[in-house]
Amino acid sequence: MATTVIVHFGHRGPHHTVVVASGGLDSTVLAYWLAARHSRLTLVSFDYGQRHRVELDYATEIARLLDSSHRVIDLTSLGALLTGSALTNTSVPVPDGHYTDESLASTVVPNRNAIMLDVAVSVAIAVHADAVAFGAHAGDHTVYPDCRPEFVERFARSVEAANEGLLTPGFQVLAPFLTLTKTDIVRVGEALSVPFALTWSCYRGQHVHCGRCSTCVERRRAFRDNNIPDPTAYETG
Amino acid sequence: MATTVIVHFGHRGPHHTVVVASGGLDSTVLAYWLAARHSRLTLVSFDYGQRHRVELDYATEIARLLDSSHRVIDLTSLGALLTGSALTNTSVPVPDGHYTDESLASTVVPNRNAIMLDVAVSVAIAVHADAVAFGAHAGDHTVYPDCRPEFVERFARSVEAANEGLLTPGFQVLAPFLTLTKTDIVRVGEALSVPFALTWSCYRGQHVHCGRCSTCVERRRAFRDNNIPDPTAYETG
Repeated sequence: MATTVIVHFGHRGPHHTVVVASGGLDSTVLAYWLAARHSRLTLVSFDYGQRHRVELDYATEIARLLDSSHRVIDLTSLGALLTGSALTNTSVPVPDGHYTDESLASTVVPNRNAIMLDVAVSVAIAVHADAVAFGAHAGDHTVYPDCRPEFVERFARSVEAANEGLLTPGFQVLAPFLTLTKTDIVRVGEALSVPFALTWSCYRGQHVHCGRCSTCVERRRAFRDNNIPDPTAYETG
Repeated sequence: MATTVIVHFGHRGPHHTVVVASGGLDSTVLAYWLAARHSRLTLVSFDYGQRHRVELDYATEIARLLDSSHRVIDLTSLGALLTGSALTNTSVPVPDGHYTDESLASTVVPNRNAIMLDVAVSVAIAVHADAVAFGAHAGDHTVYPDCRPEFVERFARSVEAANEGLLTPGFQVLAPFLTLTKTDIVRVGEALSVPFALTWSCYRGQHVHCGRCSTCVERRRAFRDNNIPDPTAYETG
């Protein structure tokens, strides 16, 4: 397991973390990882009109299992403006295939992580939490610039300036999986007994995972590479 | 008029600016200021459950006068979470008085400007605009850390990292009034023939301006200090 990347203004573990929880595999493992480190959790999810919004139900179930509060923020009026992305516009097809620049360009929702993290910071201030966390990992870096260490560092500095005097002392912006691969994350999750069957990855958002879109391909490979049984029901074998 | 503060990654005036337009005096003068500099405009307003949401109707009218598109982003589900602020919680009274740390603490919506600016960036990428702008001014600095130059600088660096390869070349984060007082802004607006009667400041959000809350007090003073007729109807003379 590679080094974790954590941006902090203090020097201790968080007492209460607001987690950007999509209902996907990465953020679910992140929530279990933080719970194992004795942080109280508040999960925040976003409905931005994503076609795979079934993931929100999975986040609700995970919050229940972790005995944490869960808030779904309605950003559908923003999603309606972002007509260029396959994740919000059902007339743009979700591409099959692996994580490459070309096939994933249409799955970029511009500035998405900054908006979600900003909201998480706002909630953190309101509930007096001392950290926000999100589950970006190394596999995201190629296509999504807002999943790179450079972004997290700069974002944290901006948060610090934007909320001077409002943040809980020692406030942290956490992206502990930033240098991990999906395979690493599945291994971490297995050690934490994460209920993988209660996580959703597929961008197509049907009743079962399609098995062919980029995130399904990556999910399947992560289990296979770890020799860990994959509990996911896929449409294609 | 003091120096304008503009953070840019290029070296020219914007062709198309997404303006965070509240319907208030500052952002309305800002929109006219940009229009006078030949920028195409997209106005973006936010409904976060503010009790003074009458301001949104004023923004719509200004967009119509400036022949620009206008989008209202619904953030009411976020506003419902932020129960500590007088601007969103009707059980917290809006304080009377001047802009001081003490009286305005309850009007802080945590991280609000970062959220609104990040949404504006998202819209800017979607519509291929080359700038975002907001109307923060010097009078805001004492109480609102997200209206200070330090925040704008750091925010712009974060935007640059978050959206590498997605931003229009030369993308700018504009806060041209950051070093101006409200009195300065009224003078700028007067020169641009801004229809001040179509702007809303009052935090109490009734049919006429209350004339007593901090933003009403500041508004009245700005007209008086300039010897410019104040077209605003105030509840108290």
